[in-house]
Amino acid sequence: MSPEPFASRLADHVARRRSQVVLGLDPDPARLPGGAAGARDFCLRVIEQAAPHCVAAKPQLACFERFGADGWQAFEDVAQAAHDAGLLVIADAKRGDVDATARHYAAAFLRPPIDALTVNPMLGTDAVQPFLDAARDTGCGLFVLVRTSNPGAAELEDLPLADGRLWHEAVADRVRGWGEGLPTGDGLSSVGAVVGATVPGRLVRLRALMSRQPFLLPGVGAQGGDPAALGPAFGGHAAGALVSASRSVIYADDPAAAAQQLREVVWSAWETAAAA
Amino acid sequence: MSPEPFASRLADHVARRRSQVVLGLDPDPARLPGGAAGARDFCLRVIEQAAPHCVAAKPQLACFERFGADGWQAFEDVAQAAHDAGLLVIADAKRGDVDATARHYAAAFLRPPIDALTVNPMLGTDAVQPFLDAARDTGCGLFVLVRTSNPGAAELEDLPLADGRLWHEAVADRVRGWGEGLPTGDGLSSVGAVVGATVPGRLVRLRALMSRQPFLLPGVGAQGGDPAALGPAFGGHAAGALVSASRSVIYADDPAAAAQQLREVVWSAWETAAAA
Repeated sequence: MSPEPFASRLADHVARRRSQVVLGLDPDPARLPGGAAGARDFCLRVIEQAAPHCVAAKPQLACFERFGADGWQAFEDVAQAAHDAGLLVIADAKRGDVDATARHYAAAFLRPPIDALTVNPMLGTDAVQPFLDAARDTGCGLFVLVRTSNPGAAELEDLPLADGRLWHEAVADRVRGWGEGLPTGDGLSSVGAVVGATVPGRLVRLRALMSRQPFLLPGVGAQGGDPAALGPAFGGHAAGALVSASRSVIYADDPAAAAQQLREVVWSAWETAAAA
Repeated sequence: MSPEPFASRLADHVARRRSQVVLGLDPDPARLPGGAAGARDFCLRVIEQAAPHCVAAKPQLACFERFGADGWQAFEDVAQAAHDAGLLVIADAKRGDVDATARHYAAAFLRPPIDALTVNPMLGTDAVQPFLDAARDTGCGLFVLVRTSNPGAAELEDLPLADGRLWHEAVADRVRGWGEGLPTGDGLSSVGAVVGATVPGRLVRLRALMSRQPFLLPGVGAQGGDPAALGPAFGGHAAGALVSASRSVIYADDPAAAAQQLREVVWSAWETAAAA
């Protein structure tokens, strides 16, 4: 029996939980005592507080890898806790390598309790194919970096091509194609795109290039994006735009309240977009 | 006291060991029984056999991560064994993320017994800066992906820009600049470049763009590059071109003989280039 595609689970989770908020779990050792166990306990507490207002959790692998083997075990515990709290689990690892290596990364990450993985597209289709194959076999999803949210992203991602596109628009074209080989769910692709949420005009252009991709939008909150300007990102689907927030929620005095507030703003942006 | 820069250690190791061979440690669970311990024991055996003919070891993180926390511990053991065998240790993890996250990856990888890390440049200067800062502070090196060796690398990396360059040549320009902020050693930069070894003309162009970068050249052996055609890659320095071989050495009937043969071919290519 084929596993339920990621896109179906995503659409279902967003509809049931009435939330597009992705809880970014980036425990920073500079703020937290106790090494790997401290990071794990902090994440478990934040999940308990904020999960009711979120649709997914996105543990940041870098924050766990810096503790070595203990950190990896903490990551497993956090992923399981997020799953048990009813959240989808997006491993934010941004992996990308040649095909023989990508197969190993796919085996490492595309399996329960993980639902999806962030992937770097630079090496091209043959390097992404093992992730696509594993996603089809396991019912997992991918979120491919298309245009990141960091201040210097334009330097290489926005370089103008001879054919008039920007480099990241060529990436977007590929991401749409990569999604075509995977089962969809409720009109959405199981291959999503990471898109910096800071420039509304860019959201319009990228939505035109990737009509069925769920967008994972970092850069809201601590990185400065405005959630009310997200309308064009949805593409007519409640699960078309997922808003990731980390520092602005997990280090808030009241993570539950911060997540709830973001959830309401984003859901309201979706309702406004759906009514337009 | 400032740590000895990676470039100095690299030049010194190549000169003393008379080898430019990088032992790629990609233990494949499909070929090896015993899980993480099996992968570790296999790597320790290969290091013991092949180290005398190599200058560095390059453990592939993906092959360890797929075993979770146990795999991470195996990676640590393998890195330490390679260091103890007199090899430089290049962690092949191809990490890249926004600056707050890159700082965590830098903390995870730029520390003893690891000497250098492979890095993905797609996100641009501000995302690479934490790796540069950590490399300066710790005396570690970086190898930044410029043009990879996989068959489909051209798809996004070779896209022609409006200014006449290829996209990866713009990356090469940045890599040269990133190296300028770090201490050099014996005329080499501590910021190297990963360059697919399969097309000699490309080596000439990229060497012209990056005169001081040590090149890490995969794609020899199992991936099909010809080590004798490497002459242009050296840039006048014995440590200017490091040849990485994995499957063609580690799965050879006699890994020591396979490493020795590759070492002799590459050293001879260097002597020919130096005499020309």
